[in-house]
Amino acid sequence: MSVVQAVLRSHPEHPAHPDAITTCVDACSLCSETCTACADACLSERHVESLISCIRLNLDCAAVCAATGSVVARANKAGNRQPLEAQLTTCIAFCRACAAECARHAERHKHCRVAADACLKCADACAEMLSSLRMPA
Amino acid sequence: MSVVQAVLRSHPEHPAHPDAITTCVDACSLCSETCTACADACLSERHVESLISCIRLNLDCAAVCAATGSVVARANKAGNRQPLEAQLTTCIAFCRACAAECARHAERHKHCRVAADACLKCADACAEMLSSLRMPA
Amino acid sequence: MSVVQAVLRSHPEHPAHPDAITTCVDACSLCSETCTACADACLSERHVESLISCIRLNLDCAAVCAATGSVVARANKAGNRQPLEAQLTTCIAFCRACAAECARHAERHKHCRVAADACLKCADACAEMLSSLRMPA
Amino acid sequence: MSVVQAVLRSHPEHPAHPDAITTCVDACSLCSETCTACADACLSERHVESLISCIRLNLDCAAVCAATGSVVARANKAGNRQPLEAQLTTCIAFCRACAAECARHAERHKHCRVAADACLKCADACAEMLSSLRMPA
Repeated sequence: MSVVQAVLRSHPEHPAHPDAITTCVDACSLCSETCTACADACLSERHVESLISCIRLNLDCAAVCAATGSVVARANKAGNRQPLEAQLTTCIAFCRACAAECARHAERHKHCRVAADACLKCADACAEMLSSLRMPA
Repeated sequence: MSVVQAVLRSHPEHPAHPDAITTCVDACSLCSETCTACADACLSERHVESLISCIRLNLDCAAVCAATGSVVARANKAGNRQPLEAQLTTCIAFCRACAAECARHAERHKHCRVAADACLKCADACAEMLSSLRMPA
Repeated sequence: MSVVQAVLRSHPEHPAHPDAITTCVDACSLCSETCTACADACLSERHVESLISCIRLNLDCAAVCAATGSVVARANKAGNRQPLEAQLTTCIAFCRACAAECARHAERHKHCRVAADACLKCADACAEMLSSLRMPA
Repeated sequence: MSVVQAVLRSHPEHPAHPDAITTCVDACSLCSETCTACADACLSERHVESLISCIRLNLDCAAVCAATGSVVARANKAGNRQPLEAQLTTCIAFCRACAAECARHAERHKHCRVAADACLKCADACAEMLSSLRMPA
Protein backbone atom coordinates (compact mmCIF):
# COMPACT_ATOMS: atom_id res chain seq x y z
CA MET A 1 0.00 0.00 0.00
CA SER A 2 1.41 3.39 -0.97
CA VAL A 3 1.87 6.09 1.66
CA VAL A 4 -0.72 8.38 0.12
CA GLN A 5 -3.18 5.49 -0.01
CA ALA A 6 -2.62 4.87 3.70
CA VAL A 7 -3.43 8.50 4.43
CA LEU A 8 -6.57 8.44 2.28
CA ARG A 9 -7.84 5.27 3.92
CA SER A 10 -7.96 7.16 7.22
CA HIS A 11 -9.38 10.37 5.72
CA PRO A 12 -12.64 11.23 7.54
CA GLU A 13 -14.46 11.98 4.26
CA HIS A 14 -14.07 8.41 2.99
CA PRO A 15 -13.18 9.64 -0.51
CA ALA A 16 -15.24 7.98 -3.22
CA HIS A 17 -12.27 7.04 -5.41
CA PRO A 18 -9.23 6.54 -3.15
CA ASP A 19 -7.35 4.34 -5.62
CA ALA A 20 -7.78 6.70 -8.57
CA ILE A 21 -6.68 9.59 -6.36
CA THR A 22 -3.63 7.69 -5.09
CA THR A 23 -2.53 6.58 -8.55
CA CYS A 24 -2.99 10.10 -9.90
CA VAL A 25 -1.15 11.86 -7.06
CA ASP A 26 1.75 9.39 -7.26
CA ALA A 27 1.98 9.69 -11.06
CA CYS A 28 1.93 13.51 -10.93
CA SER A 29 4.65 13.50 -8.33
CA LEU A 30 6.86 11.08 -10.26
CA CYS A 31 6.32 12.95 -13.52
CA SER A 32 7.22 16.25 -11.88
CA GLU A 33 10.47 14.81 -10.46
CA THR A 34 11.38 13.11 -13.72
CA CYS A 35 10.80 16.20 -15.86
CA THR A 36 12.86 18.30 -13.44
CA ALA A 37 15.71 15.80 -13.68
CA CYS A 38 15.38 15.49 -17.49
CA ALA A 39 15.56 19.29 -17.91
CA ASP A 40 18.75 19.26 -15.87
CA ALA A 41 20.26 16.41 -17.89
CA CYS A 42 19.35 18.25 -21.12
CA LEU A 43 21.18 21.35 -19.84
CA SER A 44 24.36 19.27 -19.62
CA GLU A 45 24.10 17.79 -23.13
CA ARG A 46 26.67 18.88 -25.67
CA HIS A 47 24.10 20.09 -28.19
CA VAL A 48 21.94 21.88 -25.66
CA GLU A 49 20.67 24.32 -28.31
CA SER A 50 18.71 21.45 -29.92
CA LEU A 51 17.00 20.72 -26.59
CA ILE A 52 15.66 24.15 -25.65
CA SER A 53 11.99 23.28 -26.40
CA CYS A 54 12.42 20.05 -24.48
CA ILE A 55 13.79 21.91 -21.44
CA ARG A 56 10.93 24.44 -21.54
CA LEU A 57 8.28 21.75 -21.79
CA ASN A 58 9.96 19.75 -19.03
CA LEU A 59 9.81 22.78 -16.74
CA ASP A 60 6.19 23.53 -17.65
CA CYS A 61 5.18 19.92 -17.15
CA ALA A 62 6.99 19.74 -13.79
CA ALA A 63 5.15 22.85 -12.54
CA VAL A 64 1.73 21.75 -13.78
CA CYS A 65 2.06 18.17 -12.47
CA ALA A 66 3.12 19.45 -9.03
CA ALA A 67 0.02 21.67 -8.85
CA THR A 68 -2.21 18.87 -10.12
CA GLY A 69 -0.91 16.44 -7.50
CA SER A 70 -1.59 18.97 -4.77
CA VAL A 71 -5.13 19.71 -6.01
CA VAL A 72 -5.99 16.02 -6.49
CA ALA A 73 -4.70 15.18 -2.99
CA ARG A 74 -7.44 17.53 -1.73
CA ALA A 75 -10.12 16.03 -3.99
CA ASN A 76 -11.47 13.85 -1.24
CA LYS A 77 -14.65 15.68 -0.67
CA ALA A 78 -17.28 15.90 -3.35
CA GLY A 79 -16.92 19.56 -4.16
CA ASN A 80 -16.86 21.94 -7.05
CA ARG A 81 -15.99 19.48 -9.78
CA GLN A 82 -15.50 21.77 -12.76
CA PRO A 83 -12.15 23.35 -11.77
CA LEU A 84 -10.78 19.90 -10.85
CA GLU A 85 -11.78 18.49 -14.23
CA ALA A 86 -10.18 21.49 -15.95
CA GLN A 87 -6.96 20.90 -14.01
CA LEU A 88 -6.83 17.24 -15.00
CA THR A 89 -7.50 18.09 -18.65
CA THR A 90 -4.75 20.72 -18.61
CA CYS A 91 -2.31 18.30 -16.99
CA ILE A 92 -3.03 15.74 -19.73
CA ALA A 93 -2.31 18.43 -22.37
CA PHE A 94 1.09 19.31 -20.85
CA CYS A 95 2.05 15.67 -20.28
CA ARG A 96 1.24 14.78 -23.90
CA ALA A 97 3.04 17.82 -25.31
CA CYS A 98 6.11 17.06 -23.18
CA ALA A 99 6.02 13.35 -24.06
CA ALA A 100 5.86 14.17 -27.77
CA GLU A 101 8.86 16.51 -27.55
CA CYS A 102 10.88 14.10 -25.35
CA ALA A 103 10.11 11.26 -27.78
CA ARG A 104 11.88 13.21 -30.54
CA HIS A 105 15.12 12.90 -28.54
CA ALA A 106 14.51 9.47 -27.04
CA GLU A 107 16.91 7.59 -29.26
CA ARG A 108 19.82 9.83 -28.45
CA HIS A 109 19.09 10.56 -24.81
CA LYS A 110 17.87 7.88 -22.45
CA HIS A 111 16.70 10.54 -19.95
CA CYS A 112 14.28 11.83 -22.59
CA ARG A 113 12.95 8.31 -23.16
CA VAL A 114 12.35 7.83 -19.44
CA ALA A 115 10.70 11.25 -19.14
CA ALA A 116 8.41 10.55 -22.12
CA ASP A 117 7.24 7.36 -20.38
CA ALA A 118 6.60 9.14 -17.09
CA CYS A 119 4.58 11.82 -18.92
CA LEU A 120 2.40 9.26 -20.70
CA LYS A 121 1.79 7.37 -17.46
CA CYS A 122 0.79 10.61 -15.76
CA ALA A 123 -1.56 11.51 -18.62
CA ASP A 124 -3.16 8.06 -18.27
CA ALA A 125 -3.57 8.41 -14.50
CA CYS A 126 -5.19 11.84 -14.95
CA ALA A 127 -7.55 10.43 -17.60
CA GLU A 128 -8.44 7.57 -15.24
CA MET A 129 -9.15 10.06 -12.46
CA LEU A 130 -11.36 12.06 -14.84
CA SER A 131 -13.43 8.94 -15.65
CA SER A 132 -13.75 8.11 -11.95
CA LEU A 133 -15.12 11.59 -11.30
CA ARG A 134 -17.72 11.10 -13.99
CA MET A 135 -18.87 7.72 -12.73
CA PRO A 136 -21.35 7.38 -9.91
CA ALA A 137 -19.37 6.63 -6.74
CA MET B 1 8.16 49.31 -14.97
CA SER B 2 7.73 46.03 -13.10
CA VAL B 3 10.68 43.71 -12.64
CA VAL B 4 9.20 40.97 -14.79
CA GLN B 5 8.49 43.52 -17.51
CA ALA B 6 12.14 44.60 -17.42
CA VAL B 7 13.23 41.00 -17.89
CA LEU B 8 10.81 40.46 -20.78
CA ARG B 9 11.98 43.61 -22.55
CA SER B 10 15.43 42.10 -22.81
CA HIS B 11 14.20 38.60 -23.71
CA PRO B 12 15.81 37.56 -27.03
CA GLU B 13 12.48 36.25 -28.39
CA HIS B 14 10.82 39.68 -28.27
CA PRO B 15 7.60 38.18 -26.89
CA ALA B 16 4.54 39.30 -28.83
CA HIS B 17 2.52 40.36 -25.77
CA PRO B 18 4.98 41.45 -23.05
CA ASP B 19 2.45 43.59 -21.19
CA ALA B 20 -0.23 40.89 -21.04
CA ILE B 21 2.41 38.39 -19.86
CA THR B 22 3.70 40.76 -17.20
CA THR B 23 0.25 41.62 -15.86
CA CYS B 24 -0.71 37.95 -15.80
CA VAL B 25 2.48 36.73 -14.08
CA ASP B 26 2.25 39.50 -11.46
CA ALA B 27 -1.45 38.81 -10.80
CA CYS B 28 -0.87 35.05 -10.45
CA SER B 29 1.94 35.66 -8.03
CA LEU B 30 -0.04 38.10 -5.92
CA CYS B 31 -3.10 35.85 -5.91
CA SER B 32 -1.01 32.87 -4.83
CA GLU B 33 0.53 34.83 -1.92
CA THR B 34 -2.83 36.27 -0.86
CA CYS B 35 -4.61 32.91 -0.89
CA THR B 36 -1.79 31.34 1.14
CA ALA B 37 -2.08 34.13 3.71
CA CYS B 38 -5.90 33.99 3.75
CA ALA B 39 -5.84 30.22 4.37
CA ASP B 40 -3.54 30.84 7.32
CA ALA B 41 -5.74 33.61 8.71
CA CYS B 42 -8.81 31.34 8.34
CA LEU B 43 -6.99 28.64 10.36
CA SER B 44 -6.75 31.09 13.25
CA GLU B 45 -10.41 32.14 13.20
CA ARG B 46 -12.56 31.11 16.10
CA HIS B 47 -15.16 29.31 13.96
CA VAL B 48 -12.63 27.57 11.76
CA GLU B 49 -15.07 24.73 11.04
CA SER B 50 -17.18 27.15 8.96
CA LEU B 51 -14.13 28.03 6.85
CA ILE B 52 -12.91 24.58 5.79
CA SER B 53 -14.09 24.92 2.16
CA CYS B 54 -12.53 28.36 2.03
CA ILE B 55 -9.18 27.02 3.27
CA ARG B 56 -9.23 24.17 0.73
CA LEU B 57 -10.05 26.49 -2.18
CA ASN B 58 -7.40 28.97 -1.01
CA LEU B 59 -4.79 26.20 -1.06
CA ASP B 60 -5.92 24.93 -4.47
CA CYS B 61 -5.95 28.44 -5.90
CA ALA B 62 -2.49 29.20 -4.49
CA ALA B 63 -1.05 26.04 -6.09
CA VAL B 64 -2.70 26.57 -9.48
CA CYS B 65 -1.81 30.29 -9.66
CA ALA B 66 1.83 29.53 -8.84
CA ALA B 67 1.99 26.98 -11.68
CA THR B 68 0.20 29.35 -14.07
CA GLY B 69 2.62 32.18 -13.31
CA SER B 70 5.55 29.90 -14.00
CA VAL B 71 4.11 28.62 -17.29
CA VAL B 72 3.10 32.11 -18.48
CA ALA B 73 6.58 33.47 -17.66
CA ARG B 74 7.87 30.96 -20.23
CA ALA B 75 5.20 31.87 -22.81
CA ASN B 76 7.55 34.18 -24.67
CA LYS B 77 8.04 32.04 -27.67
CA ALA B 78 5.20 31.24 -30.00
CA GLY B 79 4.86 27.57 -29.15
CA ASN B 80 2.30 24.93 -28.53
CA ARG B 81 -0.61 27.16 -27.67
CA GLN B 82 -3.23 24.64 -26.61
CA PRO B 83 -1.78 23.58 -23.23
CA LEU B 84 -1.13 27.24 -22.35
CA GLU B 85 -4.74 28.15 -23.13
CA ALA B 86 -5.96 25.20 -21.06
CA GLN B 87 -3.82 26.36 -18.13
CA LEU B 88 -5.22 29.90 -18.29
CA THR B 89 -8.79 28.58 -18.49
CA THR B 90 -8.18 26.32 -15.49
CA CYS B 91 -6.66 29.16 -13.51
CA ILE B 92 -9.74 31.31 -14.22
CA ALA B 93 -11.96 28.46 -12.95
CA PHE B 94 -10.04 28.16 -9.65
CA CYS B 95 -9.83 31.92 -9.14
CA ARG B 96 -13.58 32.32 -9.66
CA ALA B 97 -14.48 29.39 -7.40
CA CYS B 98 -12.18 30.72 -4.67
CA ALA B 99 -13.49 34.29 -5.07
CA ALA B 100 -17.08 33.04 -4.75
CA GLU B 101 -16.30 31.12 -1.57
CA CYS B 102 -14.25 33.96 -0.05
CA ALA B 103 -17.05 36.41 -0.88
CA ARG B 104 -19.38 34.40 1.36
CA HIS B 105 -17.16 35.31 4.34
CA ALA B 106 -16.15 38.80 3.21
CA GLU B 107 -18.35 40.69 5.60
CA ARG B 108 -17.02 38.90 8.62
CA HIS B 109 -13.41 38.50 7.63
CA LYS B 110 -11.50 41.24 5.87
CA HIS B 111 -8.83 38.76 4.76
CA CYS B 112 -11.50 36.91 2.78
CA ARG B 113 -12.61 40.15 1.13
CA VAL B 114 -9.04 40.97 0.12
CA ALA B 115 -8.48 37.45 -1.18
CA ALA B 116 -11.70 37.54 -3.22
CA ASP B 117 -10.47 40.73 -4.90
CA ALA B 118 -7.06 39.24 -5.68
CA CYS B 119 -8.73 36.17 -7.19
CA LEU B 120 -10.99 38.26 -9.44
CA LYS B 121 -8.06 40.39 -10.59
CA CYS B 122 -6.09 37.26 -11.39
CA ALA B 123 -9.03 35.79 -13.35
CA ASP B 124 -9.24 39.04 -15.34
CA ALA B 125 -5.50 39.04 -16.09
CA CYS B 126 -5.67 35.41 -17.27
CA ALA B 127 -8.67 36.26 -19.48
CA GLU B 128 -6.76 39.23 -20.93
CA MET B 129 -3.78 36.97 -21.63
CA LEU B 130 -6.09 34.48 -23.37
CA SER B 131 -7.46 37.22 -25.66
CA SER B 132 -3.93 38.41 -26.45
CA LEU B 133 -2.98 34.89 -27.51
CA ARG B 134 -5.95 34.77 -29.85
CA MET B 135 -5.21 38.11 -31.49
CA PRO B 136 -2.66 38.45 -34.24
CA ALA B 137 0.54 39.82 -32.69
CA MET C 1 15.23 0.94 -10.69
CA SER C 2 13.29 4.12 -9.90
CA VAL C 3 12.42 6.55 -12.70
CA VAL C 4 14.61 9.33 -11.31
CA GLN C 5 17.50 6.88 -11.01
CA ALA C 6 17.07 5.95 -14.68
CA VAL C 7 17.27 9.62 -15.63
CA LEU C 8 20.37 10.20 -13.49
CA ARG C 9 22.15 7.18 -14.97
CA SER C 10 21.98 8.87 -18.35
CA HIS C 11 22.86 12.35 -17.06
CA PRO C 12 25.94 13.62 -18.94
CA GLU C 13 27.59 14.85 -15.73
CA HIS C 14 27.78 11.35 -14.22
CA PRO C 15 26.67 12.62 -10.81
CA ALA C 16 28.96 11.47 -8.01
CA HIS C 17 26.19 10.16 -5.76
CA PRO C 18 23.28 9.05 -7.97
CA ASP C 19 21.77 6.72 -5.38
CA ALA C 20 21.79 9.29 -2.58
CA ILE C 21 20.25 11.84 -4.94
CA THR C 22 17.55 9.39 -6.07
CA THR C 23 16.63 8.33 -2.55
CA CYS C 24 16.52 11.95 -1.41
CA VAL C 25 14.42 13.21 -4.35
CA ASP C 26 11.96 10.32 -3.98
CA ALA C 27 11.66 10.80 -0.21
CA CYS C 28 11.09 14.57 -0.57
CA SER C 29 8.41 13.96 -3.14
CA LEU C 30 6.63 11.33 -1.06
CA CYS C 31 6.84 13.45 2.08
CA SER C 32 5.42 16.45 0.26
CA GLU C 33 2.44 14.41 -1.07
CA THR C 34 1.81 12.79 2.29
CA CYS C 35 1.88 16.06 4.24
CA THR C 36 -0.49 17.65 1.70
CA ALA C 37 -2.90 14.73 2.12
CA CYS C 38 -2.54 14.70 5.92
CA ALA C 39 -3.34 18.44 6.11
CA ASP C 40 -6.47 17.78 4.09
CA ALA C 41 -7.51 14.84 6.28
CA CYS C 42 -6.93 16.99 9.40
CA LEU C 43 -9.23 19.67 7.94
CA SER C 44 -12.03 17.09 7.87
CA GLU C 45 -11.55 15.87 11.44
CA ARG C 46 -14.26 16.67 13.92
CA HIS C 47 -11.93 18.44 16.37
CA VAL C 48 -10.09 20.41 13.73
CA GLU C 49 -9.26 23.18 16.21
CA SER C 50 -6.87 20.77 17.98
CA LEU C 51 -5.03 20.13 14.70
CA ILE C 52 -4.26 23.68 13.54
CA SER C 53 -0.53 23.47 14.34
CA CYS C 54 -0.40 20.11 12.62
CA ILE C 55 -2.03 21.54 9.47
CA ARG C 56 0.38 24.50 9.41
CA LEU C 57 3.44 22.29 9.82
CA ASN C 58 2.12 19.88 7.18
CA LEU C 59 1.77 22.76 4.71
CA ASP C 60 5.22 24.14 5.55
CA CYS C 61 6.81 20.72 5.27
CA ALA C 62 5.08 20.05 1.93
CA ALA C 63 6.38 23.34 0.49
CA VAL C 64 9.94 22.89 1.77
CA CYS C 65 10.19 19.23 0.69
CA ALA C 66 8.97 20.11 -2.82
CA ALA C 67 11.65 22.80 -3.15
CA THR C 68 14.30 20.48 -1.73
CA GLY C 69 13.44 17.72 -4.19
CA SER C 70 13.71 20.16 -7.06
CA VAL C 71 17.07 21.54 -5.90
CA VAL C 72 18.52 18.07 -5.19
CA ALA C 73 17.39 16.82 -8.63
CA ARG C 74 19.72 19.51 -10.04
CA ALA C 75 22.59 18.61 -7.71
CA ASN C 76 24.31 16.51 -10.33
CA LYS C 77 27.14 18.81 -11.03
CA ALA C 78 29.72 19.62 -8.42
CA GLY C 79 28.74 23.21 -7.82
CA ASN C 80 28.26 25.70 -5.08
CA ARG C 81 27.81 23.29 -2.20
CA GLN C 82 26.93 25.65 0.65
CA PRO C 83 23.36 26.60 -0.40
CA LEU C 84 22.58 22.92 -1.13
CA GLU C 85 23.79 21.90 2.33
CA ALA C 86 21.72 24.69 3.89
CA GLN C 87 18.63 23.48 2.01
CA LEU C 88 19.10 19.90 3.21
CA THR C 89 19.62 21.07 6.80
CA THR C 90 16.47 23.21 6.61
CA CYS C 91 14.47 20.34 5.18
CA ILE C 92 15.58 18.09 8.04
CA ALA C 93 14.43 20.77 10.51
CA PHE C 94 10.93 20.99 8.97
CA CYS C 95 10.57 17.22 8.63
CA ARG C 96 11.50 16.68 12.28
CA ALA C 97 9.22 19.46 13.53
CA CYS C 98 6.33 18.10 11.47
CA ALA C 99 7.02 14.51 12.56
CA ALA C 100 7.02 15.57 16.21
CA GLU C 101 3.69 17.38 15.87
CA CYS C 102 2.10 14.55 13.85
CA ALA C 103 3.32 12.02 16.43
CA ARG C 104 1.23 13.82 19.07
CA HIS C 105 -1.91 12.86 17.11
CA ALA C 106 -0.74 9.49 15.81
CA GLU C 107 -2.81 7.39 18.17
CA ARG C 108 -6.03 9.07 17.22
CA HIS C 109 -5.42 9.68 13.54
CA LYS C 110 -3.76 7.12 11.33
CA HIS C 111 -3.04 9.78 8.70
CA CYS C 112 -0.88 11.61 11.23
CA ARG C 113 1.01 8.39 12.01
CA VAL C 114 1.68 7.79 8.31
CA ALA C 115 2.77 11.40 7.80
CA ALA C 116 5.12 11.26 10.81
CA ASP C 117 6.80 8.21 9.25
CA ALA C 118 7.16 9.87 5.85
CA CYS C 119 8.72 12.94 7.51
CA LEU C 120 11.26 10.88 9.43
CA LYS C 121 12.21 8.93 6.31
CA CYS C 122 12.66 12.17 4.41
CA ALA C 123 14.82 13.62 7.20
CA ASP C 124 16.97 10.47 7.05
CA ALA C 125 17.33 10.66 3.26
CA CYS C 126 18.37 14.33 3.50
CA ALA C 127 20.91 13.47 6.21
CA GLU C 128 22.28 10.66 4.02
CA MET C 129 22.59 13.07 1.10
CA LEU C 130 24.42 15.54 3.32
CA SER C 131 26.97 12.86 4.33
CA SER C 132 27.44 11.87 0.68
CA LEU C 133 28.25 15.48 -0.20
CA ARG C 134 30.86 15.59 2.53
CA MET C 135 32.55 12.36 1.47
CA PRO C 136 35.09 12.28 -1.33
CA ALA C 137 33.27 11.07 -4.47
CA MET D 1 -0.94 49.06 1.36
CA SER D 2 0.02 45.80 -0.33
CA VAL D 3 -2.50 42.99 -0.65
CA VAL D 4 -0.60 40.66 1.66
CA GLN D 5 -0.34 43.43 4.22
CA ALA D 6 -4.13 43.91 4.09
CA VAL D 7 -4.59 40.19 4.78
CA LEU D 8 -2.14 40.22 7.68
CA ARG D 9 -3.79 43.26 9.27
CA SER D 10 -6.98 41.21 9.63
CA HIS D 11 -5.18 38.02 10.75
CA PRO D 12 -6.62 36.93 14.12
CA GLU D 13 -3.14 36.28 15.55
CA HIS D 14 -2.06 39.91 15.21
CA PRO D 15 1.36 38.89 13.90
CA ALA D 16 4.19 40.60 15.75
CA HIS D 17 6.02 41.79 12.62
CA PRO D 18 3.44 42.30 9.85
CA ASP D 19 5.60 44.71 7.84
CA ALA D 20 8.68 42.48 7.87
CA ILE D 21 6.50 39.51 6.86
CA THR D 22 4.84 41.48 4.04
CA THR D 23 8.12 42.80 2.64
CA CYS D 24 9.67 39.34 2.81
CA VAL D 25 6.72 37.53 1.18
CA ASP D 26 6.52 40.13 -1.61
CA ALA D 27 10.28 40.02 -2.25
CA CYS D 28 10.32 36.20 -2.35
CA SER D 29 7.46 36.20 -4.81
CA LEU D 30 9.03 38.81 -7.07
CA CYS D 31 12.42 37.09 -6.96
CA SER D 32 10.85 33.76 -7.85
CA GLU D 33 9.03 35.26 -10.88
CA THR D 34 12.10 37.16 -12.02
CA CYS D 35 14.43 34.15 -11.80
CA THR D 36 11.90 32.02 -13.71
CA ALA D 37 11.73 34.66 -16.45
CA CYS D 38 15.52 35.15 -16.49
CA ALA D 39 16.09 31.39 -16.90
CA ASP D 40 13.74 31.44 -19.86
CA ALA D 41 15.45 34.46 -21.43
CA CYS D 42 18.85 32.75 -20.94
CA LEU D 43 17.52 29.66 -22.77
CA SER D 44 16.88 31.87 -25.81
CA GLU D 45 20.31 33.52 -25.84
CA ARG D 46 22.63 32.66 -28.70
CA HIS D 47 25.47 31.46 -26.46
CA VAL D 48 23.25 29.47 -24.13
CA GLU D 49 26.12 27.11 -23.27
CA SER D 50 27.80 29.97 -21.35
CA LEU D 51 24.64 30.45 -19.27
CA ILE D 52 23.99 26.91 -18.00
CA SER D 53 25.08 27.66 -14.42
CA CYS D 54 22.99 30.81 -14.47
CA ILE D 55 19.90 28.85 -15.61
CA ARG D 56 20.42 26.21 -12.91
CA LEU D 57 20.83 28.79 -10.16
CA ASN D 58 17.81 30.73 -11.45
CA LEU D 59 15.68 27.58 -11.22
CA ASP D 60 17.00 26.72 -7.75
CA CYS D 61 16.45 30.26 -6.52
CA ALA D 62 12.91 30.35 -7.96
CA ALA D 63 11.99 27.10 -6.17
CA VAL D 64 13.53 28.10 -2.83
CA CYS D 65 12.04 31.63 -2.86
CA ALA D 66 8.58 30.24 -3.62
CA ALA D 67 8.81 27.87 -0.64
CA THR D 68 10.19 30.63 1.59
CA GLY D 69 7.33 32.98 0.68
CA SER D 70 4.82 30.30 1.52
CA VAL D 71 6.44 29.46 4.88
CA VAL D 72 6.85 33.13 5.85
CA ALA D 73 3.21 33.85 4.96
CA ARG D 74 2.34 31.32 7.70
CA ALA D 75 4.80 32.82 10.21
CA ASN D 76 2.10 34.80 11.94
CA LYS D 77 1.94 32.81 15.06
CA ALA D 78 4.87 32.60 17.41
CA GLY D 79 5.81 29.00 16.77
CA ASN D 80 8.78 26.80 16.30
CA ARG D 81 11.30 29.42 15.28
CA GLN D 82 14.30 27.30 14.37
CA PRO D 83 13.05 25.81 11.07
CA LEU D 84 11.83 29.27 9.97
CA GLU D 85 15.23 30.80 10.69
CA ALA D 86 16.92 27.97 8.78
CA GLN D 87 14.63 28.59 5.79
CA LEU D 88 15.43 32.30 5.75
CA THR D 89 19.16 31.61 6.00
CA THR D 90 18.95 29.10 3.15
CA CYS D 91 17.00 31.54 1.01
CA ILE D 92 19.67 34.19 1.57
CA ALA D 93 22.34 31.68 0.46
CA PHE D 94 20.52 30.87 -2.81
CA CYS D 95 19.69 34.52 -3.53
CA ARG D 96 23.32 35.55 -3.06
CA ALA D 97 24.69 32.67 -5.15
CA CYS D 98 22.22 33.45 -7.93
CA ALA D 99 22.92 37.20 -7.74
CA ALA D 100 26.67 36.55 -8.02
CA GLU D 101 26.24 34.33 -11.08
CA CYS D 102 23.75 36.72 -12.75
CA ALA D 103 26.11 39.64 -12.09
CA ARG D 104 28.75 37.90 -14.21
CA HIS D 105 26.41 38.26 -17.22
CA ALA D 106 24.83 41.59 -16.30
CA GLU D 107 26.73 43.68 -18.82
CA ARG D 108 25.71 41.53 -21.73
CA HIS D 109 22.19 40.59 -20.68
CA LYS D 110 19.88 43.09 -19.09
CA HIS D 111 17.63 40.26 -17.81
CA CYS D 112 20.55 39.00 -15.73
CA ARG D 113 21.11 42.47 -14.30
CA VAL D 114 17.45 42.75 -13.31
CA ALA D 115 17.48 39.25 -11.79
CA ALA D 116 20.64 40.00 -9.79
CA ASP D 117 18.90 43.05 -8.30
CA ALA D 118 15.76 41.07 -7.41
CA CYS D 119 17.92 38.41 -5.72
CA LEU D 120 19.80 40.95 -3.62
CA LYS D 121 16.56 42.65 -2.59
CA CYS D 122 15.12 39.30 -1.58
CA ALA D 123 18.24 38.43 0.43
CA ASP D 124 17.91 41.78 2.23
CA ALA D 125 14.21 41.22 2.99
CA CYS D 126 14.98 37.75 4.40
CA ALA D 127 17.79 39.21 6.52
CA GLU D 128 15.42 41.90 7.79
CA MET D 129 12.83 39.25 8.66
CA LEU D 130 15.51 37.26 10.52
CA SER D 131 16.39 40.32 12.64
CA SER D 132 12.71 40.96 13.38
CA LEU D 133 12.37 37.40 14.65
CA ARG D 134 15.31 37.90 16.96
CA MET D 135 14.02 41.16 18.39
CA PRO D 136 11.47 41.24 21.19
CA ALA D 137 8.06 41.92 19.58
